[in-house]
Amino acid sequence: MKNVLGSSVTLTLFGESHQEYIGAVLDGLSAGIKVDEEFIKHMLAKRRPSSLTDTARKEEDNFKIISGVFNGYTTGSPLTIIIPNENVRSSDYDEKVIRPSHADYVSEVKYHGFADYRGGGHFSGRLTAPIVALGAICLKALNDKGIFIGSHILKCGAVEDVHFGDIEKDVKVLDNKVIPVISKVESDIEKEILKAKENLDSIGGVIQVGIKGLPVGVGSPWFSSLEGVLANAMFSIGGVKGIEFGKGFDFAKGYGSDNNDAFEIKGGKVVTKTNNNGGINGGISNGMPIIFNLAVKPTPSIAKEQDSVDLEKQENVKVSVKGRHDPAIIRRINAVTTCLTAIVICDELTKKFGEDYLK
Amino acid sequence: MKNVLGSSVTLTLFGESHQEYIGAVLDGLSAGIKVDEEFIKHMLAKRRPSSLTDTARKEEDNFKIISGVFNGYTTGSPLTIIIPNENVRSSDYDEKVIRPSHADYVSEVKYHGFADYRGGGHFSGRLTAPIVALGAICLKALNDKGIFIGSHILKCGAVEDVHFGDIEKDVKVLDNKVIPVISKVESDIEKEILKAKENLDSIGGVIQVGIKGLPVGVGSPWFSSLEGVLANAMFSIGGVKGIEFGKGFDFAKGYGSDNNDAFEIKGGKVVTKTNNNGGINGGISNGMPIIFNLAVKPTPSIAKEQDSVDLEKQENVKVSVKGRHDPAIIRRINAVTTCLTAIVICDELTKKFGEDYLK
Amino acid sequence: MKNVLGSSVTLTLFGESHQEYIGAVLDGLSAGIKVDEEFIKHMLAKRRPSSLTDTARKEEDNFKIISGVFNGYTTGSPLTIIIPNENVRSSDYDEKVIRPSHADYVSEVKYHGFADYRGGGHFSGRLTAPIVALGAICLKALNDKGIFIGSHILKCGAVEDVHFGDIEKDVKVLDNKVIPVISKVESDIEKEILKAKENLDSIGGVIQVGIKGLPVGVGSPWFSSLEGVLANAMFSIGGVKGIEFGKGFDFAKGYGSDNNDAFEIKGGKVVTKTNNNGGINGGISNGMPIIFNLAVKPTPSIAKEQDSVDLEKQENVKVSVKGRHDPAIIRRINAVTTCLTAIVICDELTKKFGEDYLK
Amino acid sequence: MKNVLGSSVTLTLFGESHQEYIGAVLDGLSAGIKVDEEFIKHMLAKRRPSSLTDTARKEEDNFKIISGVFNGYTTGSPLTIIIPNENVRSSDYDEKVIRPSHADYVSEVKYHGFADYRGGGHFSGRLTAPIVALGAICLKALNDKGIFIGSHILKCGAVEDVHFGDIEKDVKVLDNKVIPVISKVESDIEKEILKAKENLDSIGGVIQVGIKGLPVGVGSPWFSSLEGVLANAMFSIGGVKGIEFGKGFDFAKGYGSDNNDAFEIKGGKVVTKTNNNGGINGGISNGMPIIFNLAVKPTPSIAKEQDSVDLEKQENVKVSVKGRHDPAIIRRINAVTTCLTAIVICDELTKKFGEDYLK
Repeated sequence: MKNVLGSSVTLTLFGESHQEYIGAVLDGLSAGIKVDEEFIKHMLAKRRPSSLTDTARKEEDNFKIISGVFNGYTTGSPLTIIIPNENVRSSDYDEKVIRPSHADYVSEVKYHGFADYRGGGHFSGRLTAPIVALGAICLKALNDKGIFIGSHILKCGAVEDVHFGDIEKDVKVLDNKVIPVISKVESDIEKEILKAKENLDSIGGVIQVGIKGLPVGVGSPWFSSLEGVLANAMFSIGGVKGIEFGKGFDFAKGYGSDNNDAFEIKGGKVVTKTNNNGGINGGISNGMPIIFNLAVKPTPSIAKEQDSVDLEKQENVKVSVKGRHDPAIIRRINAVTTCLTAIVICDELTKKFGEDYLK
Repeated sequence: MKNVLGSSVTLTLFGESHQEYIGAVLDGLSAGIKVDEEFIKHMLAKRRPSSLTDTARKEEDNFKIISGVFNGYTTGSPLTIIIPNENVRSSDYDEKVIRPSHADYVSEVKYHGFADYRGGGHFSGRLTAPIVALGAICLKALNDKGIFIGSHILKCGAVEDVHFGDIEKDVKVLDNKVIPVISKVESDIEKEILKAKENLDSIGGVIQVGIKGLPVGVGSPWFSSLEGVLANAMFSIGGVKGIEFGKGFDFAKGYGSDNNDAFEIKGGKVVTKTNNNGGINGGISNGMPIIFNLAVKPTPSIAKEQDSVDLEKQENVKVSVKGRHDPAIIRRINAVTTCLTAIVICDELTKKFGEDYLK
Repeated sequence: MKNVLGSSVTLTLFGESHQEYIGAVLDGLSAGIKVDEEFIKHMLAKRRPSSLTDTARKEEDNFKIISGVFNGYTTGSPLTIIIPNENVRSSDYDEKVIRPSHADYVSEVKYHGFADYRGGGHFSGRLTAPIVALGAICLKALNDKGIFIGSHILKCGAVEDVHFGDIEKDVKVLDNKVIPVISKVESDIEKEILKAKENLDSIGGVIQVGIKGLPVGVGSPWFSSLEGVLANAMFSIGGVKGIEFGKGFDFAKGYGSDNNDAFEIKGGKVVTKTNNNGGINGGISNGMPIIFNLAVKPTPSIAKEQDSVDLEKQENVKVSVKGRHDPAIIRRINAVTTCLTAIVICDELTKKFGEDYLK
Repeated sequence: MKNVLGSSVTLTLFGESHQEYIGAVLDGLSAGIKVDEEFIKHMLAKRRPSSLTDTARKEEDNFKIISGVFNGYTTGSPLTIIIPNENVRSSDYDEKVIRPSHADYVSEVKYHGFADYRGGGHFSGRLTAPIVALGAICLKALNDKGIFIGSHILKCGAVEDVHFGDIEKDVKVLDNKVIPVISKVESDIEKEILKAKENLDSIGGVIQVGIKGLPVGVGSPWFSSLEGVLANAMFSIGGVKGIEFGKGFDFAKGYGSDNNDAFEIKGGKVVTKTNNNGGINGGISNGMPIIFNLAVKPTPSIAKEQDSVDLEKQENVKVSVKGRHDPAIIRRINAVTTCLTAIVICDELTKKFGEDYLK
């Protein structure tokens, strides 16, 4: 289904960037989960442009939960959030001049010219706001079950952060950072981004996501592998163009003897000595931390002049993308990946343990 | 759903490595597609161990189509294939000693000791044979629509193949190769694999998949993006630990101005000057070739001694994997990726154009 | 999925009776369908209490389309409607005294006391308003394709309406009626309802639904039969407790020779001489009108005193349902069945003919 | 999805009447369920023609379980059964003369003449054999959980059986009957059927299904109501043209005060004094027995001459259906309804309680 994610816990996403509201419906969450609106605001703030490095566009995210919560707890019925679109400047957009590496062209063709093209319409990154808001509820419910999820910028330009260590601790460290990195590379990344911005350009990077505390046996072989469902969810985020679990593409270089994760009994539990497989064997969690990386391309909207096409006139034109854009969307996507991962994990746990598990 | 892939064209996979049959059901294919059993055999041969570089295990793949084909054409009803498991040596397997980086451990825990553990059971790579057989039917149907799909080993150890050029031509070149590479690096890769084999070890690599001829507008925004559905399918293949579209993880290094795909009108058609996005914008095909790479880990089964655990005795043990295994599963997986991609694309085209489109 | 209907065109329903909004998301509709807000209002009016025979509760249905429509046409992205809940009197409801034949008890148990119980919460018939609104868009799109859908009260108490004749003409007749009947039995039915009302009681009936113009070949054998998907949709409507296609339960009485629909060629087309099967053979439309009947139980909310239980005190109590209720919900459900049928048929046609068919 | 039923426990059905095998895949069953092949044979025998009243066609049902069972228990992986088609006489069928009230015509149009028309092909009642076989496994697993499912012929011609009393006891009584009735009306029904047979005709009836022991809270509001999912499953059975829960169509006649099920506390439990709603409120089980009736039309295959059409010659013809057919398919369908209900209930319980519940 196009705009529905999941099977036991399902997320239905709707909205276009320049209409009155965007929003989403999260169905299948256990009844009785505490909904902490302050925590939702806290997570939304991480996604919002908030520093030098982001767009000058002001986004308020005055969300409203219009169903599924009663007296502060989930009711077990669909939980719906709507967020008004404010501060939109539709005049920045010209329907027929398609922006390179954006969805403008495919949208125009697929929807025969009927799509709401303003601000990217339904393809706008703006729609990740309800994902963050609903994911925040899931994140909190998972924490109460001893499951911790976080993400950080692993690479941006020439700068690299350290890999996840103890995810639970790292998540606490990350929670206070404006630029989400574990080590002290915040200002280095800020410099990389500002350099791109000064050149009317943009920059990409790699996000690393970690999950601690997932029990053994979550996921399925073949067509609902934990890798597969997470990958499908992550590719919904505009700008994500790659995903690798554990050593991922580095597996290609080595030998089996270097890469296999040997088992041992430690503290009475079966664990692996290394975690090259990122906590997943045969599509199923093996009790080790789940680790995956996401390739994030540079924001396609750049002020620099580019070659493009005017679809109406059917002629080649020059375009320099107007509007207020992020030189590095990766900082804001980082919060989305954490929250979307939380939604996927709630779905998987509900499938495995039943509809009341997350209560 | 666990063992069902797709929505309009669905693949249901079943079987365990050491039972009488494995097989799969493909439902939703248009009625009236020609089924060429010789072509199925031809594709199955590519997946079968057949040279110095693979396992000594003999696999016959004497498949039988037991429903869905009548007088040589698809009937529109579920198409079922069964393949007998022959030449199995169950004594090679010990249930309770779990093989590192295999699914043995998660399977034992998830299924509470009831799984058929012999030869990897339901997790066995053997189950990719029916995927290849059914994918071959899809591949042929797509060819008749002017859509060409192929894959090759892009990297193996230190050796690199060239990237796809004209996919239609490259597919023809690849069709005659034992080791699927476009350039003349067959013997180099063979050497890499044999070196691993001699060391009782295994080796991984990168597979590149290409699709030519897909019209603009296939796929969906958000949760059924073309990247997402392809990724979910590819991660069902044991050994695949990463996927990237177009420049993928290389996007992380550059700037927007280097990476955006400028549009131009060429021969009366809107095309992009580069194809860094691998033919997909906003989750939807843009008319350029679809290109993606897969990270394939080294076969986890190695004869070298490894640390592991005996689950019954709950003690640390040494294990050297017996049985006849492939030092580099990548050659055989290559055929699976092509065929599985064909199934996914048939699903997408049927969703978009309706149930009779592929006829 | 719990609150998602359909596969190619999907309806996600949300909301509780006494929260700020109820609403629904319709995804998968072709881009470029004209959205006529006046027609939506016209259909909503049929569902609204509007005469002597209904509840005194005032419902405004000031709906707002917040996504998926641009310049008066569908965009191809999820179409979302929200409707404010106005004129609610929450004090009419007591959480712990469960109303007989309502969902109060199952809701209390299933959701462990966390459900929003006010006014039936998520189970409220109020949620059929967004179904009517979105179904009205589908109904209009189908009309443009030559497909006509309507429904009428076939039985209510001792009164019977005639069966559908030419559905297209009958739909026009029904469109102007307050009590939807084809023949002149409006006042008879009104009397039946008022008699129940005077007795502080309620009354049920049978609704008949007809579809004209559906091409041959819509639907599927086995688990997505046209009967099955329509039945699943119809049982979502509170109060519907039975469905029969064509002669339905009357088939039980006769012989094959009396009940088979003989074929003949008429006007160059293959048709059946009778339509005992209600236009469906083997789960698939055969080109004749689709006809089915729905058993609608009397509204469970009655002012008469009934035996019940106080769940908190765990003791037997007497209850006479307060609040403003309908003595015969059937009049209002009638509009819902027409509109929900239109949504199902749009889904089926999109599955069969592809995403652009309804444009 | 066309030939896939369910979401957590899924049934994929395949096969055509005159090919080598028919079969089905049941996925999502808990690992560790005992598989009793003798009980499967016992249930298959109930579906098989075995008395005066049925077809002279000999069906053996020499089923083979080819995956998903190991050492007599389910493995947690897809459970596949195949049944060879024996004793087929393809010459009895003529492709182009369509049989009244059969799927021949819709199949010919939908599949553009490519369907395997022999013996009804994929539409054949023969495909209910694997449903019975797999349902028998579910039935046994449910018994072990204290859930009992049965069905009987409630009406056939002028003869009526009593309604279900204590379902657990009635199921035992029914288990030994050739014609499944609770009271002593076996010979009366036999006479009705034989009378139809002598007249070269066929006869229909009503089947009643009962479920005892289902806990409160199974099912969902709106689009996955227990009524909806059961109805969708039941309409997959050829010949079923109506379904009603509890009083069903009899609700239409009475008043709310006559039909509501008053609650009371009895033996410390909340129960209803009557069960007019058939154990379901708001789409969810309320702890009372689930009761529903199915309208079964007379077998459409009759030896009597009927009007029909030759599609090739496009002319009106007379047809008298050759082949060996059942004068009353209802006796054989009865076993199918029990087994299919068991599969649906396993799906619902797995959704609610998780993947290990049925172990």
